[in-house]
Amino acid sequence: MKVLIIGGVAGGMSAATRMRRLSESAQIVVLERGAHVSFANCGLPYYVGGVIPKRESLLLQTPESLAARFRLDVRVRHEATAVDPVGRTVTVRELDSGREYVESFDELVLSTGASAVVARLPGVERALVLRDVTDVDRVVEAVGNARSAVVIGAGFIGVEMAENLVRRGISTTVIERGPQVLGPLDVEMAAPVAAEMRTHGIRLELGAEVSTIEADTVTLSDGSVVPADLVIMSIGVRPESGLAREAGLEIGSGAGVVVDDRLRTSMPHIYAVGDVVEKRDSVSGQSGLIPLANSANRQGRLVADVIAGLPAIDPPALGTAIVGVFGLTAAMTGWSEKRLRAAKRPFRVIHSHPLAHAGYYPDAAAMSLKLLVDPDTDQILGAQAVGADGVDKRIDVLATAMAGGIAASRLMDLELAYAPQFGSAKDAINMLGYMADNLRIGALRTIQWHELDEAISTGSHAVDVRTPEEFAAGSIPGARNIPLDELRARVEEIPAGPILVLCQVGQRGNSATRLLNQLGREAVNLDGGYRTWRAAGADRICR
Amino acid sequence: MKVLIIGGVAGGMSAATRMRRLSESAQIVVLERGAHVSFANCGLPYYVGGVIPKRESLLLQTPESLAARFRLDVRVRHEATAVDPVGRTVTVRELDSGREYVESFDELVLSTGASAVVARLPGVERALVLRDVTDVDRVVEAVGNARSAVVIGAGFIGVEMAENLVRRGISTTVIERGPQVLGPLDVEMAAPVAAEMRTHGIRLELGAEVSTIEADTVTLSDGSVVPADLVIMSIGVRPESGLAREAGLEIGSGAGVVVDDRLRTSMPHIYAVGDVVEKRDSVSGQSGLIPLANSANRQGRLVADVIAGLPAIDPPALGTAIVGVFGLTAAMTGWSEKRLRAAKRPFRVIHSHPLAHAGYYPDAAAMSLKLLVDPDTDQILGAQAVGADGVDKRIDVLATAMAGGIAASRLMDLELAYAPQFGSAKDAINMLGYMADNLRIGALRTIQWHELDEAISTGSHAVDVRTPEEFAAGSIPGARNIPLDELRARVEEIPAGPILVLCQVGQRGNSATRLLNQLGREAVNLDGGYRTWRAAGADRICR
Repeated sequence: MKVLIIGGVAGGMSAATRMRRLSESAQIVVLERGAHVSFANCGLPYYVGGVIPKRESLLLQTPESLAARFRLDVRVRHEATAVDPVGRTVTVRELDSGREYVESFDELVLSTGASAVVARLPGVERALVLRDVTDVDRVVEAVGNARSAVVIGAGFIGVEMAENLVRRGISTTVIERGPQVLGPLDVEMAAPVAAEMRTHGIRLELGAEVSTIEADTVTLSDGSVVPADLVIMSIGVRPESGLAREAGLEIGSGAGVVVDDRLRTSMPHIYAVGDVVEKRDSVSGQSGLIPLANSANRQGRLVADVIAGLPAIDPPALGTAIVGVFGLTAAMTGWSEKRLRAAKRPFRVIHSHPLAHAGYYPDAAAMSLKLLVDPDTDQILGAQAVGADGVDKRIDVLATAMAGGIAASRLMDLELAYAPQFGSAKDAINMLGYMADNLRIGALRTIQWHELDEAISTGSHAVDVRTPEEFAAGSIPGARNIPLDELRARVEEIPAGPILVLCQVGQRGNSATRLLNQLGREAVNLDGGYRTWRAAGADRICR
Repeated sequence: MKVLIIGGVAGGMSAATRMRRLSESAQIVVLERGAHVSFANCGLPYYVGGVIPKRESLLLQTPESLAARFRLDVRVRHEATAVDPVGRTVTVRELDSGREYVESFDELVLSTGASAVVARLPGVERALVLRDVTDVDRVVEAVGNARSAVVIGAGFIGVEMAENLVRRGISTTVIERGPQVLGPLDVEMAAPVAAEMRTHGIRLELGAEVSTIEADTVTLSDGSVVPADLVIMSIGVRPESGLAREAGLEIGSGAGVVVDDRLRTSMPHIYAVGDVVEKRDSVSGQSGLIPLANSANRQGRLVADVIAGLPAIDPPALGTAIVGVFGLTAAMTGWSEKRLRAAKRPFRVIHSHPLAHAGYYPDAAAMSLKLLVDPDTDQILGAQAVGADGVDKRIDVLATAMAGGIAASRLMDLELAYAPQFGSAKDAINMLGYMADNLRIGALRTIQWHELDEAISTGSHAVDVRTPEEFAAGSIPGARNIPLDELRARVEEIPAGPILVLCQVGQRGNSATRLLNQLGREAVNLDGGYRTWRAAGADRICR
């Protein structure tokens, strides 16, 4: 059996090595257009920043090492230019010599990945992208002579790039067309990341568009000019599906190759994996683009199992992602609120601001968590987290809970490792379960930060149950302060009519709301408290 | 409704506060024998060590704060001395005055906890235990004058105590009757913790018994004398079930109170939670003692739901536990290998030594993971981890996977957050899934460290596939070195007969074993490689 693999990075190389472990007799050929295989894509920004000091750290394998260990025929700078699905051949161009030749296959794996989207702008030829080792060499060279940089696009890669340019002492501006950084997150969860970036000297232009790129500046559509010895373009990626399209393979609405749950394309003996395919989404069941390194690696290994005749199935994808930004970490899994809203899918929202570990143990930093729940089934639809420590752990636990079909309210039952330096006796995750259960059984009613203005304008009385000191440091407009511990005695001070309760993070507000309800008052709790409301910028954008 | 709660720490106070949030009208009385309620048990060792500098950090609530916020009637230094389940009364002694009185109840919650087991030894009255704030005050006072200490018992608390005594500059000896520290873990997983303790100057006497405690020494049964200005007894806890027993409640074989999955005892209107009850084990389905703070907290809240008529169910327990020891963390969930072996339950073992995050990103430290799998159902039976970073995360993910019924081999599908500072594209957890799947489908055969001697003595040829440099630094006796990259060319050097493959952590060995199998050779891989074998002390104890 001859297995031909086009693309030698995450998906392709995982497929090749697993294929060899399953079959010593298979002939395995890997064609890679670029100069390197099996490199550490996700490390590229950190090499720019000097966090990863040595270039060779990025090169996990070479054609030679793969030949020695796995008897793979790896050909770099060899580009597949055409696929004949019927004749089962691929036309290959050797890029350095220009020579063309035809390679046959019994089974073909397309792992061509995705390429950076480049906006059509005057001067864009000066903009650099960051997808492979050749790109990073260019960026590192440019960084050496740069005092200023513009990063276009504030997605995960753009934010990582900005951080690493700052590490190199470069004055950096990030320009993002959308209203927030990290578009996949909801606005109130992304806001702390934007604040952290600004704290570290990054100039952030949100809701801004680049109109032209000049020799050492970038001009925005509002006419402002930003210094830019270096311009990085990171506005997204698109599947490298041209080869598949020309071969007549079915292409999906997102321009990715359509595959089934065994990674088979529409043509027999041709498979596709990684960023070039459309993946089935575990929340909607529909296909879409989820270009993530871990999923590419998993699919690569899995396609080898499929080719070897093992009963492997590619499960639907959650799209778990994470990014470190200076002292903060932001992560998510599943769907965001805005995505659910756009899909008109019903959902419940829970915000919390737990400590990463027990408050009585030193250095317990608060994080922000958000959980999205199906109100009919109690299914977890998505989660987001931002904070200093323990963010990765909580998102991994929630992604695992989603994979295991654990209902939101059953998060209360999870037995997570507790000692005071690692968590809390009722862990942040358990607390999400308690809140989900309270909402489910009607023991708690909440209101979201963006619903507050309407509640106030329709006659709700806002009661802030924090201490006078906390209240004095800032509250929502029109709120009166009755600390929780005095609420029983002072409830008569609140005029008749519905009550909107708030506290710092939502927890005291929960107790207060319960108390008011039982005293016969109509009351709802501001979900996530003053902190979520502030993080969302509601003090500025809601009035 | 009048709810009486006996015991005001984790379980009791969770019950009381949740009860109030569910019912403003209930009368809630909490009786606590000790001088403090709702204190941070798990922080006590760290207060001894000065990590938690202030004593008041341990006191999470006071009777006054609980009265103000939750209108609770909390009575410290009030001991319940008898329960009349039929008349529904409790006899109470006010410890400071000696006054006795009778308190009625509609519903009673027993949350009396567990007390430290104290061995009957000559001189034992000098030994201190560490269960509450009064205990910790005694220990802190004794520490002030001590230059040497003996900790009897190397369980989780004993190990934490030893670490914190060393922090205070005290020369510390830990004496443990069993052959290892952290008895709930398997020996090869506990061994790195013992090494870490010794590195930090702790004298560790394993397989040793104390025969007498003298004025400033401790004498072991072998006659050796250990300096001990201070003696801490931490050999375990037993349920404080005397009150329940005398009231005629059903008591289990472990001396804990028997409850059903709604935390009801054998008598109507009497409930029990926390360390005093026997919990249903999620692996065996049988009841036993699982004295853990997080479980007590969860049960406390849950019993209030039950009393309030909500359809709450207490799920079976995994017993997830964690401990930090200087630079190491050790954690576990579910069952250990030795426990499965003792129960004659079939299992598969997987050892791995993954990096906490991507190897190309700085400071990627290795950890050790162990997974126990039901060979018939692929169910995860237990997991253990020890290492510097990321141990808590991996155990939490595995505990969540167990709760969600995710099969061992499906761990490969989990979508865990990946950026190079947080994990790997194929995370340590995914890798466990791959290994479990390889074992399940027969794509890999392994041998455990303790089976190696027999394999060699029955004629297996040991082949070490690491580099010559690694081999030179130590290998198993009689192994020949053929680096993996040379194995295809040199396979003829291996004499006929079965082959035992080893490498550093098991991964290259897996590739080598697959290769040898496909070349028609009978081969098995040493699970966890040389590192697990060494960690187990097999170089010393197996020959």
